[in-house]
Amino acid sequence: MMTSEPNASSQFDPAQWVIDSNDKMALSIRIRECLFQEQSPYQTVEVFDTYGNGKMLTIDRMVMCTEADEASYHDMLVHVPMFTHPNVRDVLVIGAGDGGTIRELVRHPGIERITMVEIDEVVVRASKQFLPTISSALEHPKLNLLIDDGIKFVKEAKDESYDLVIIDSSDPVGPSEGLFSKAFYQDVYRCLRVGGVVTVQSESPIFNPKAFVELNQCLKEVFGIDRVHCYLVFIPMYPTGMWSLTYCSKQGPHPVEDLDCNRAAQFTKEQDLRYYNADVHKAAFCLPTYIQKMLGQAY
Amino acid sequence: MMTSEPNASSQFDPAQWVIDSNDKMALSIRIRECLFQEQSPYQTVEVFDTYGNGKMLTIDRMVMCTEADEASYHDMLVHVPMFTHPNVRDVLVIGAGDGGTIRELVRHPGIERITMVEIDEVVVRASKQFLPTISSALEHPKLNLLIDDGIKFVKEAKDESYDLVIIDSSDPVGPSEGLFSKAFYQDVYRCLRVGGVVTVQSESPIFNPKAFVELNQCLKEVFGIDRVHCYLVFIPMYPTGMWSLTYCSKQGPHPVEDLDCNRAAQFTKEQDLRYYNADVHKAAFCLPTYIQKMLGQAY
Repeated sequence: MMTSEPNASSQFDPAQWVIDSNDKMALSIRIRECLFQEQSPYQTVEVFDTYGNGKMLTIDRMVMCTEADEASYHDMLVHVPMFTHPNVRDVLVIGAGDGGTIRELVRHPGIERITMVEIDEVVVRASKQFLPTISSALEHPKLNLLIDDGIKFVKEAKDESYDLVIIDSSDPVGPSEGLFSKAFYQDVYRCLRVGGVVTVQSESPIFNPKAFVELNQCLKEVFGIDRVHCYLVFIPMYPTGMWSLTYCSKQGPHPVEDLDCNRAAQFTKEQDLRYYNADVHKAAFCLPTYIQKMLGQAY
Repeated sequence: MMTSEPNASSQFDPAQWVIDSNDKMALSIRIRECLFQEQSPYQTVEVFDTYGNGKMLTIDRMVMCTEADEASYHDMLVHVPMFTHPNVRDVLVIGAGDGGTIRELVRHPGIERITMVEIDEVVVRASKQFLPTISSALEHPKLNLLIDDGIKFVKEAKDESYDLVIIDSSDPVGPSEGLFSKAFYQDVYRCLRVGGVVTVQSESPIFNPKAFVELNQCLKEVFGIDRVHCYLVFIPMYPTGMWSLTYCSKQGPHPVEDLDCNRAAQFTKEQDLRYYNADVHKAAFCLPTYIQKMLGQAY
């Protein structure tokens, strides 16, 4: 293990490290080289080769995913709702340009149609070219991939047309900011079928506490206080390593009580998933007391 | 959220950031000032005031604890065994110079005697002076605090004299290296009463994978394969945020099946614990599949 020496700052040459920081802490990931860099109309999209974490996608230098640990995030965003909802046929995905969420969805043969709405074609193009293990299902026949504004899309979507909606957004700056608003989630609610489920990337309780708490409050206002369930995932290459996802339903299944353990266990084994298993599914909803208190849920 | 600019390296002035790194990634914690710095015979001990994470203890610039999240570690190291073992009276603690482990132990009135063996008096002195919320029980009447070598201490300890042994070590470099050896754990096993429990700081699966895997193997050789249980804790201010502890017993209670939920729930509420609760206790033992595979435990 290296320790910082008086001249340690020299090791953070920006040609060698990608730094994701706030004003209290920073996560730095060491890079070999930049494989892709393009300024889209929305943001700067880059792909790097790292030391030990495989290839990495960043947006405005915030870590979106690394090959080493992207399965944690994508497994938990997708398989948690898939094993509580008994019969998902129509799925809407907002964001998800890297394709990892789609790769996990198409493992489930019962799904009939997936509509994905990603605002930035550069993310999709970069991922297809440089992250083939993550983007592998972006040409799947069940997928309808639209390059469009997800906020506008859900505003115009038909009522009660999806069983599962996944909000796989980047952080609430730039084009993703509107994905953290009440108006957006009211539209999401409306276009969900009764019994339908939503999972949402809901930020880090420690790195982005304000966004984390406000989004939870917003979701409770839209879905009802008993229908919103925060869960936690270890994502070592995100700052603090502690990330939250949130499960909401429209009078639908409870995320733990309605877990189909047998189906989950069989699938996990057949598909050789890296992170998800039925025990981890249940465990993720058990929050440390200080997180419960942040959300006004402590008992 | 700040993003890295071409001149980002300048933000890592070592007077402003403490950097805990390996050759793949780094965690940087922003500091206001250094409150204490002393080179002991073993290591460099420092206390910093941080931005937003309270005061922080480092050893050779590796983060030992911050006031913001030390409860996660200390709660899980102490209360997990305390609610599976029905009657802990004699406790041995190796390391733990900051005092957080002792503070959690003395919440349990049934404990009669705590022997703590810390090799470096500088850690104890710095913590007493600058980390009063963590070191608050280091003068407790039940505590016998010895400044001594823990390895030598357990070698000379009487057979079957402790109900609970806690190995609260720093990382396996410098004086803590011997705390990761089979000879040491054979002595620990010997001085445990039958039915006794050990909890161990067992490193990060991602940041220190070699130490994590080797220590698990070592513990299984000493305690038996079915008596060693890895569990995970979110510690945002440790690199990767994913830290492991390990629960072992000498033909003692199972860490989940023998959890006394009612006793844990009542205590958690009365003591207003920050991290630990009975649900989190059980959840911590549910490992992501890739961690199970690292430990040869995947099903």
